[in-house]
Amino acid sequence: MKIGYLGPPGSFSHDAARQCSAGFGGKAEYIALPEFAAIFDAVEKGELEHGIVPVENSTHGAVAVVMDLLRKLRRGTVCGELVIDIEHCLVAKAAALANIRTVYSHEQALAQCRDYFGNYPAIALIACASTSQACQLARAGGGACGAVAGRTAAKLYELPVLAGSIQDNALNQTRFFLIGRRSPEPTGRDKTSVVFAFQADRPGNLATVLQAYAGRGINLTRVESRPAKHSMGDYIFYIDFLGHKQDKVCADALTAVGRQVAWLKILGSYPVNGGRGGEATCYGI
Amino acid sequence: MKIGYLGPPGSFSHDAARQCSAGFGGKAEYIALPEFAAIFDAVEKGELEHGIVPVENSTHGAVAVVMDLLRKLRRGTVCGELVIDIEHCLVAKAAALANIRTVYSHEQALAQCRDYFGNYPAIALIACASTSQACQLARAGGGACGAVAGRTAAKLYELPVLAGSIQDNALNQTRFFLIGRRSPEPTGRDKTSVVFAFQADRPGNLATVLQAYAGRGINLTRVESRPAKHSMGDYIFYIDFLGHKQDKVCADALTAVGRQVAWLKILGSYPVNGGRGGEATCYGI
Repeated sequence: MKIGYLGPPGSFSHDAARQCSAGFGGKAEYIALPEFAAIFDAVEKGELEHGIVPVENSTHGAVAVVMDLLRKLRRGTVCGELVIDIEHCLVAKAAALANIRTVYSHEQALAQCRDYFGNYPAIALIACASTSQACQLARAGGGACGAVAGRTAAKLYELPVLAGSIQDNALNQTRFFLIGRRSPEPTGRDKTSVVFAFQADRPGNLATVLQAYAGRGINLTRVESRPAKHSMGDYIFYIDFLGHKQDKVCADALTAVGRQVAWLKILGSYPVNGGRGGEATCYGI
Repeated sequence: MKIGYLGPPGSFSHDAARQCSAGFGGKAEYIALPEFAAIFDAVEKGELEHGIVPVENSTHGAVAVVMDLLRKLRRGTVCGELVIDIEHCLVAKAAALANIRTVYSHEQALAQCRDYFGNYPAIALIACASTSQACQLARAGGGACGAVAGRTAAKLYELPVLAGSIQDNALNQTRFFLIGRRSPEPTGRDKTSVVFAFQADRPGNLATVLQAYAGRGINLTRVESRPAKHSMGDYIFYIDFLGHKQDKVCADALTAVGRQVAWLKILGSYPVNGGRGGEATCYGI
């Protein structure tokens, strides 16, 4: 069983891939890939059974590039979700924080530590491909360079932790999707992710779609819009809801929604995991 | 009349500020500030009459940090919108593209040119504070360095354009908000922006809110969710709709929405500008 993740080794995606492998009896091989598109590509072509990609963070929101890749899925499907705690640390070979002039990390990690670095205006923040690449750059850069990364990466790249939990919110979680080619069977506690777009110029459309769920007692857990990329003001919508696409009530809702929209793609149905301590609550949507 | 924008001079925000000043009879003074939070701060404190900030791009979506600052507005209000075309260029002192090893730009600009740079894997992309700072870094860095920036910045920093229109979508627009302390009067062609959150665990809530608009024939032009930052799965919602908060039908809708939500903040009502050629169409929501 091969799982692709955003490398190099030691990234939060690597942590997530390892946690997922428990579901495969731990017999997974982890393949570090240089960018998200390569992970989707390898799964689509069947070169990897699975890929793991971050879709949203509790501080920074949606991971835009992954959301855009999801809508292009053809043979692949979302077959799992995983919510993990993210602790960002400032790691460096420097003896003291005062020596640090440059800090590397993935742009999302830097964005999640905005308040912390607001106190250190002399430090230049440089975005790079991943938190683990940031550790490599910090090691190569010497005593004036640091990285924002997790404890796994810090250990792997032998960089001491100068400050722990530097993220803006003490509670910082990232939700990952496991993508693959096989659609999981219903478990009784499932979630389904869909993406759709409307024909232009029909007011009240989104209200009608949401009513198709609300009227059937189906709880939405996420509603996200992304640009349709034609012109300003055109959007596509991503919705996650509780239930499996094979559940009768969900199948009915999907049929009803399909009639309201220009196109509808079911990204996948998968067992609920994580979010508010793993409880399958409805989130007030 | 002082307008704050994300500097240094030559940024797209600077272009937007200059276009806005036509509305003030061109008598504006443009103040470059180092980050978005400083712009909001200066307007809140009354140090600047106005600030201009990007809120969404037709390729990359919402500008997360600005969306989060908007919800914290206290005395300030959104008093205008402006949609401008964004043309990204690769600019450098290098004689040829093949000489370039490093390209600087704002993370959103780099994100908007992902496909282009996918063809040049040897070029390292480094995120910095703005497209104009990127030009300064490229100038300082010499012949192996370039920047992604607009033509205004290229001219200002005397960097030749090696390639024009390198953004992923030929049509690439950014929508800006003009923030200030005075709320504009109704013009008959206005838009209103609001942000709200639900009490937890009440299914069908968003459907009810959207119905409050749809049932009154009010067209939504944008629905955006952002993390509430408490825990994964808690969101707040931003909605833009056609009409002024003083219009009777809009005031009624806002009262109805106010009853459904935990809190509701009216970010502002302002004249419609831009989006689909400036037409006040409904966008299928």
